[in-house]
Amino acid sequence: FTRWCANLQQTWHQTIPLSAFMQLQITQFDGNLLACQAPLAPNKNLHHTMFAGSIYSLLTLTGWGLIWLQLQALGLQGDIVLADADIRYLAPVQQDARAQVQLLDAVGDLTALTRGRHVRQLLTVRLTEGDRLLAEFHGRFVVKPATVAVSAG
Amino acid sequence: FTRWCANLQQTWHQTIPLSAFMQLQITQFDGNLLACQAPLAPNKNLHHTMFAGSIYSLLTLTGWGLIWLQLQALGLQGDIVLADADIRYLAPVQQDARAQVQLLDAVGDLTALTRGRHVRQLLTVRLTEGDRLLAEFHGRFVVKPATVAVSAG
Repeated sequence: FTRWCANLQQTWHQTIPLSAFMQLQITQFDGNLLACQAPLAPNKNLHHTMFAGSIYSLLTLTGWGLIWLQLQALGLQGDIVLADADIRYLAPVQQDARAQVQLLDAVGDLTALTRGRHVRQLLTVRLTEGDRLLAEFHGRFVVKPATVAVSAG
Repeated sequence: FTRWCANLQQTWHQTIPLSAFMQLQITQFDGNLLACQAPLAPNKNLHHTMFAGSIYSLLTLTGWGLIWLQLQALGLQGDIVLADADIRYLAPVQQDARAQVQLLDAVGDLTALTRGRHVRQLLTVRLTEGDRLLAEFHGRFVVKPATVAVSAG
């Protein structure tokens, strides 16, 4: 998992300049749960709390990242695109908060990619500080088939 | 309007680092319609189109900006916060696209601020390229009363 996460974070920082500016980091991945965070300084707003757009971007990329990691696990390739999303902001984010998403909460079967199908995957990503829910994001991602990767065996 | 827009853009760039990194710019304001844009380079994703989080941030700030401009017009002060939002991505954004929002489409009466009330304002912000709709954002903002500004006369 460590190598996958390093590759994912490198992919983000190299191809999405905003993710590098945000200093987005993966903090945990255990095969089911992916957690990311971003420091407040580059992501603040004029209230000195986290900017709504940064929170959204953090939760979007955490969701996108979980799908990317699933594709690695399945030995599949696909283009992951966000089709639509909604987000609720429940409390101001004052400091580094934790974005997390679980595979167990995901709806959608990526193995249909092997049959050349587009797959929709619904994810719920939550931003928390301790036990407190600060924001909740629901994203409907579409994964389009790409070349099937050769299994590393 | 020119001075208000200059102040708004300066407020964004000085207090929201992400907006400066995105190179967010106001391109039009006529008292009803506010249009903004951001160049593709700092906002791209790994498909070389605009990152979903950048699109969302552009539309959020365009909506936030219209409320800020309304407050200026009414001689009121208030803290503008996004409570929740949804967004649909309809087509990839290949180059500089135009985010626009109209006061005529807004739902919510800001003058209730003068009676010490919180005001909810619903805004629809659209991202277009020519006649083509690329993304649509609905945001529910809350404006909290602050000190009433002295009219400049």
